[in-house]
Amino acid sequence: MKEIKSYVEANKDRFLNELFELLRFQSVSADPKYKEEVIKTADYIAQKLKDAGADNVEICATAGYPIVYGEKIVDPSLPTVLIYGHYDVQPPDPLELWETPPFEPTLRDGKIYARGACDDKGQVYMHVKAFELMMKTNTLACNVKFMIEGEEEVGSSNLGIFVKANQERLKADVVLISDTSMISMEHPSIEVGLRGLAYMEVEVVGPNRDLHSGVYGGAVANPITILCKMIASLHDENNHITIPAFYDKVVELSDAEKEALNAAPFDLDEYKKDLEIDEVWGEKGYSTLERTGTRPTLEVNGIWGGYIGEGAKTVLPSKANAKISMRLVPNQSSEEIAEIFAKHFESIAPKNVKVKVTPHHGGEPAVTPTDSKAYKAAEMAIMDSFGKKAIPTRGGGSIPIVALFEEVLGLKTVLFGFGLDSDALHSPNEKYDLYNYYKGIETLPLFHKYFAELNANG
Amino acid sequence: MKEIKSYVEANKDRFLNELFELLRFQSVSADPKYKEEVIKTADYIAQKLKDAGADNVEICATAGYPIVYGEKIVDPSLPTVLIYGHYDVQPPDPLELWETPPFEPTLRDGKIYARGACDDKGQVYMHVKAFELMMKTNTLACNVKFMIEGEEEVGSSNLGIFVKANQERLKADVVLISDTSMISMEHPSIEVGLRGLAYMEVEVVGPNRDLHSGVYGGAVANPITILCKMIASLHDENNHITIPAFYDKVVELSDAEKEALNAAPFDLDEYKKDLEIDEVWGEKGYSTLERTGTRPTLEVNGIWGGYIGEGAKTVLPSKANAKISMRLVPNQSSEEIAEIFAKHFESIAPKNVKVKVTPHHGGEPAVTPTDSKAYKAAEMAIMDSFGKKAIPTRGGGSIPIVALFEEVLGLKTVLFGFGLDSDALHSPNEKYDLYNYYKGIETLPLFHKYFAELNANG
Repeated sequence: MKEIKSYVEANKDRFLNELFELLRFQSVSADPKYKEEVIKTADYIAQKLKDAGADNVEICATAGYPIVYGEKIVDPSLPTVLIYGHYDVQPPDPLELWETPPFEPTLRDGKIYARGACDDKGQVYMHVKAFELMMKTNTLACNVKFMIEGEEEVGSSNLGIFVKANQERLKADVVLISDTSMISMEHPSIEVGLRGLAYMEVEVVGPNRDLHSGVYGGAVANPITILCKMIASLHDENNHITIPAFYDKVVELSDAEKEALNAAPFDLDEYKKDLEIDEVWGEKGYSTLERTGTRPTLEVNGIWGGYIGEGAKTVLPSKANAKISMRLVPNQSSEEIAEIFAKHFESIAPKNVKVKVTPHHGGEPAVTPTDSKAYKAAEMAIMDSFGKKAIPTRGGGSIPIVALFEEVLGLKTVLFGFGLDSDALHSPNEKYDLYNYYKGIETLPLFHKYFAELNANG
Repeated sequence: MKEIKSYVEANKDRFLNELFELLRFQSVSADPKYKEEVIKTADYIAQKLKDAGADNVEICATAGYPIVYGEKIVDPSLPTVLIYGHYDVQPPDPLELWETPPFEPTLRDGKIYARGACDDKGQVYMHVKAFELMMKTNTLACNVKFMIEGEEEVGSSNLGIFVKANQERLKADVVLISDTSMISMEHPSIEVGLRGLAYMEVEVVGPNRDLHSGVYGGAVANPITILCKMIASLHDENNHITIPAFYDKVVELSDAEKEALNAAPFDLDEYKKDLEIDEVWGEKGYSTLERTGTRPTLEVNGIWGGYIGEGAKTVLPSKANAKISMRLVPNQSSEEIAEIFAKHFESIAPKNVKVKVTPHHGGEPAVTPTDSKAYKAAEMAIMDSFGKKAIPTRGGGSIPIVALFEEVLGLKTVLFGFGLDSDALHSPNEKYDLYNYYKGIETLPLFHKYFAELNANG
């Protein structure tokens, strides 16, 4: 531990500068206009893996953005850790709400502000630097394989193909991912559950052209009004989702599981204060932790239609659109939910309009075990580094590839994230605490150490 | 009539070229970025009035865009016609739907395509050219005053101040406006009713920042969902508006009035075919003509919130907005309706969000008489020019200043419009038929002629 700390201390500034350089690349995978920047980011990651001592570094082409692979096989008899992460980021919109530009990383109050600071560039780069540290201090206790992709924020659709085609190369004993949060630095935690995702885009079309709302208003169905009515009907008065068969495969938690979940440190008043809201919202009969961790949800991620510029325009628009996504829990299938959503949404459209439903991407929910060697290694690493026992939590987010790794590679995952819920992922002013960044770099080598030891002891 | 026709024929091309020049100015009053263009448009109108022979032409400054004034007093004992129109236009969005650019007027199939082609540059310019014709052929039978403003599309808020301050200068016997439509060229008509307007902008604010929809979704109220629920509740299952007291002052038409209104030529199948819709929509118990002509309505003119770019972003946005306008019928007051809307909208907001309601502009409804000399003069002009008796109709649009002229100047208005409902006012590909443009220039001098004659005969 002392050696680790002194290496980090000695290289602190460089570790930060390199991360800043990584954060400057505008690697927005959702928007084609950033294409060149995304590709440059892959090049940078590959170079840094090489610099740190990785072998067989390759920028693997896919039908979309490339996957960066690299490895260090110390000894085939040692256990192998497959590190997964992503170098792409969410779009930075709305730009005007950023205090400092999203792609000009800025240090404020001990925090790094930039798109991707936490999700996932900051967290992925901890692994690169922890790897460098183990190489330079000759302490690499496991074989290591890196697989860093550039399409996580748009559904990882080419990763599945890559994983299926590279099963031999990706052989490992566990997948290690840092793309989740802890409760806090005082309450270190490990996520053991992730929700799945079905992301849809809907379009409601009324008249064949935008109309004058005075001449036609009141006589022709307004697609915005219709879309609003359709969206409004998706939750009932208890905020229960109304899509038939939506909850059919959802398993209710046992009383004991509920109790354990709700025992995690959580202060509802602090939560409301942080978000500046008077009341939380959600499905009747469930606590906030249950709502985000164990229940499927439906959110409108975007809506647009008609005139949205300055001032007033009296238009009855031809169409209105929305992006709607659902988070899924174990036993729900992304494809199945996408299908029943589309069927339901089409069925509730009145005859006055035409409706089009297009699925974006999806992903399956996952629950990771807490009785594995890998989970124990993570627990021991946290005990060493934080001096506290990690609390297992169920997160609300989705990392669809966790289910994929299990299905294709037969591998379980450890979600070893160092972010915080307050890091404003996917929002303006995303940040990552310097403390968490360095703490991650210090803690990860301990995982490798303990994972090797636990495997050596059978 | 023959002399009129030959003058128009001889000057046809110039009349069109001058209109094209007028249409090229991007006089969008709603958006400050067009400011210079709006002002240039006023200059152009003023110059053309001078060229046509108007006296005392003045570009009258206001707190907003200027009002162009000009006059020709032939003989104080003759009746005076105050011609009103506007040189500003609606924003051209969505730009991508225009077949040819909105500010590059283009002739296609005998139609002029451009923003403002019909509303109102094309129609206002008919008056300028009809005035030129009467001056050049020495047939001006009435005194004429022009008042052409640049803020009609944003609520004419400075016109009221101007009119109040210039009551002497604006003294006249009737107001003549061409800013409305006819049923068709085969069924010439005169609008005798206009709806009022209350235009509101609403904002629903949830959490203080955009959130990750996985981490917070299902536990924090989504402002888009809440806004949709609020908008959905504004119409009941009969498409009746649910705002308390909204209909209190609305007067139901008598059976005889209803019968007269529904006797106007109207083909519902053609209407649906033109808009490519399977079903019309509207308040239960009323025909399409009643819905647009005699009933108040509420339309969402725009909505936006969350991520509206390419691809998928899993955000739970901090806020959502909408532009909502109501068309009003006689006895409803714009200010009062704006107030009860705001009160109602705030009252239906759940505690999980904060709501802000901002009124844009408003205007009062108006009904114009059909037994006046001015209406008769218009009817006679149409009989001469079209060979048919004009049908009185009640339009769905709003020209709020009609009520203002009556209140401040004590003047009735004749709505002598030559547009068509299919002109795509406020929409992409706005057009004005060449035929209608020239027909207007030919018909307007007849109005002046008959109005002078009817007044001379007492």
